[in-house]
Formats: sequence, C-alpha cells, structure tokens
Amino acid sequence: MIYSSKQNSLIKMLASLKDKKGRRENGLYIAQGVKMVSEAIKFNQEIEYIVIAEGFDASFLDCNAKTITVTNQVFEYLSDEKTPQGVLAVIKIPEFTANKPNGNAIVLDGIQDPGNLGTIIRTAVASGYSDIYLINSVDPFSPKVVKASMSGIYFVNLYKCTYDELFQVIDGYDLIVSDLDGDNLFEFKPKNNYAIVIGNEGNGVSNELREKASVVLTIPMTDKIESLNASVAAALMMYNLKN
Amino acid sequence: MIYSSKQNSLIKMLASLKDKKGRRENGLYIAQGVKMVSEAIKFNQEIEYIVIAEGFDASFLDCNAKTITVTNQVFEYLSDEKTPQGVLAVIKIPEFTANKPNGNAIVLDGIQDPGNLGTIIRTAVASGYSDIYLINSVDPFSPKVVKASMSGIYFVNLYKCTYDELFQVIDGYDLIVSDLDGDNLFEFKPKNNYAIVIGNEGNGVSNELREKASVVLTIPMTDKIESLNASVAAALMMYNLKN
Repeated sequence: MIYSSKQNSLIKMLASLKDKKGRRENGLYIAQGVKMVSEAIKFNQEIEYIVIAEGFDASFLDCNAKTITVTNQVFEYLSDEKTPQGVLAVIKIPEFTANKPNGNAIVLDGIQDPGNLGTIIRTAVASGYSDIYLINSVDPFSPKVVKASMSGIYFVNLYKCTYDELFQVIDGYDLIVSDLDGDNLFEFKPKNNYAIVIGNEGNGVSNELREKASVVLTIPMTDKIESLNASVAAALMMYNLKN
Repeated sequence: MIYSSKQNSLIKMLASLKDKKGRRENGLYIAQGVKMVSEAIKFNQEIEYIVIAEGFDASFLDCNAKTITVTNQVFEYLSDEKTPQGVLAVIKIPEFTANKPNGNAIVLDGIQDPGNLGTIIRTAVASGYSDIYLINSVDPFSPKVVKASMSGIYFVNLYKCTYDELFQVIDGYDLIVSDLDGDNLFEFKPKNNYAIVIGNEGNGVSNELREKASVVLTIPMTDKIESLNASVAAALMMYNLKN
C-alpha cells in the first residue's frame, strides 16, 4: 500500500510532528535522510516507523520498525527539506527527568535559534558532554535542531527544567558564565565539576543565572564586534575547558 | 517622494542586489536594520543610498548619502527579512586585489552556507584576523552573509582568488589544515605566520590545499560525531592559535 492522501489519519499524525504541539501529543519526532536514519537504527533509537517515498530502496536499512511507503507528494509534505532524500524515521522522544549530570554539563539559558541549538548539541557530543539543561529554549526535537545536530541528538540527555530544578541538580558544581569582565577563558583551568551557561542570542545570560555564577570567564574580543554567535561561544567554552 | 512601484528603474536596480548577478553588475550590496546601517555610517563604509520605509524616522542617522523613501510593500520587496526594521543601506562593494595578508590569514576552501560564512567573518574580526581568502565559496556580499557577519563585513579584506593566487601571496606562511591524524590543536603553538584553511561543509579541504599543507592539526572528537560545523571548527582554530 502506498499512502497518497494528506487526509489519511496516519499521514495527518505524521505531519503534525513538524509542530511542537504534535510532537508533544504523540511523543514522537522526525529524523530525515539516509545518514540520520541509518544512525538512528545503529544507535538503537526507539523507531516507531520508517517512512519512504515510493521508489526509494530501503532494503539496506536493517530495522524492525514498520515501514510506510508514501507518494513523493506526501513525502514532501511530511518533510521540511528542500531536496528530501526519500527516507525518514519517526522516533520516540526519550523521557528525561532532570537529574544530576554525568560529569560536566551545559546549560542553555534562552537559546531561540534551532540552528544554534542543533550545532551546540553536535559540538557538545563531539567534545564529550552528555548532559544539556534547557531553560526557556527552543524545542530540541524540531526538525531543524535534529538536522543541525548531525546525529548528536541521539547521544545527549536533554533536560527541560526551571531555574530551581537546575540549581538542585547541579548543587556543588561551578556555574560558569561568560561576560566581558571575567577571567580569560584561555588561561583558566577548572578545578571542580562545572556547568557552562550559554545565554540567549540577543540578551545573553539571564539575571537568575548571572547572580548564581561562581566563575565568570571572558572570551577576548577586538572592539569591532560586540559578541560572538551563541554556538561559537559555546564551542570555545566547551572545548577549552576540557583541553 | 515615496517610491511605490516595483517597476521603477531605481527600485528594480535595488531589488537586483538580492542576487549575485545584480550585485556584480552594480558593485553594490545591502546591509539591513538599524544596527548594521548605523555601523556602516560609523565605520565609514561608502554608502550610496539609505532606503527607509514610509513612517520610519531616520533623523538619528548621521549620513550624507541620498535617502530614498519607499512604501512598506516596496521595502518588504527589497528586504529578505521576515520582520524588516524599515531601514537599509546600499553600500559600495570594496575592491580587493589579492594581496599579502596583514598578519595571519583565513582561507575558505569551498564554504557554501551563507550563515557559516557570515559567522566565520564575525568570529575572524572578533579574534583579530583581517584577511580572508575565498576559493570556490559563496558570495560574501549576499544578504544572509552580511547579516550573519554582524558588521564584521565592514572590517575584513575579502579576496576572491584561485589556488595559484593564494600560494603566491602566502608564500612563506605555514598553511594549516585540520584533519583526523594531525597534532592536537590544543597543544600546538604556531612559530611562523600562518593561514588557516577551512574546508567545504560536506567534503572538507580540497586536495589542492591538503597537498600544500605544512601543518596538520586535529580537533579531538569523540567517536559519536564525524565532524564539527565549519564555523565552529573555524572558531576553534582561529581562537586557539592566537590564545
């Protein structure tokens, strides 16, 4: 059977996953393309469906999940990519309850750009962080975040939490923020477990976290530029505190 | 006079600046929003026109360039932003002839994503690099690059060049590429003037530059992620070679 109608109830449910509301109601998200789908299988994500466009040869995918074939038109409707590859996985959103970090942690304090969030997840996994606390930030399971994470989404614990919940689980940790009048990041060596705070793209770190910071670091900059991109600042902090 | 027609020859010319062909033919590009326009004035860019939407109060802009008022509809047509602020500057594209770098340099070897290029320019200026050599890369004066550069575009020399032209001007420099089997970036201290190569988002550094590299550095990564985002890798290289 090839699904050809956007009115079919299963297709309607899958289309709803493009939106945060649909993802929350169904507990599912979408990962697109050959590489992301292959890695979802390889790294044992809980796959509910594999969806392929008619004519796509999915025989190389070693997966027990139910495969659904749809017309190219329906596939394009489900995908938000300009040139979809013809395969996507519908994956269960893992349930994370805010917990103590496993080693050092990342705190995202109002990250709003999906590309930034995805890139931060990618860099966090590359540099060896596995716990990300999200406060007032964009949904990490939106298609743009998932794509920009380049499979990083499969390897991190993503805790949506409040300031108070955060303070409880990172009790005893150094809370590190970056600001203009701190110690030079490139000369600082952490002595304790730490949580790196990355602030909102326009407004920086919130007062709630600024007040609780135990370490303030500065990324040196010339006077021609006011600030760095959030995912760049995050990468410099994540890597240089480890290396 | 308020321009209200998309068919007006001046409006047509301004609209053509959204495309590379129009920018090349007219030698002009567009910088949008209050901050980018204010900084273009402050940092003495050669502004040909200031374009404002009707009702926008431009009296705070201290600029001798000719101001053109257009209807909101025409402004939205000229702008590629979702929520335009009602002001943009039309600026002369500076002419750069490939020249020896002033200190250390950045070489972009096939960067295709405008957001990445803009972010790399922003980080380069923040970290103190002023010479960027572009080979097979996206046009740096496209609206998306200009926007992501956050005024960085006003402070860099952008040389579009061939491999041979590059090799001539950086003769005597260390050409630094990143790869999986190099020295650890975080343990390396440069001894000579250097040029950092950032490769294409999908394919990495070209064979032409890989063969000529005098230093190969590795950004350590866990085995869960294949590569870093190009603007993240660029930032780690640029900052850690200086600090």
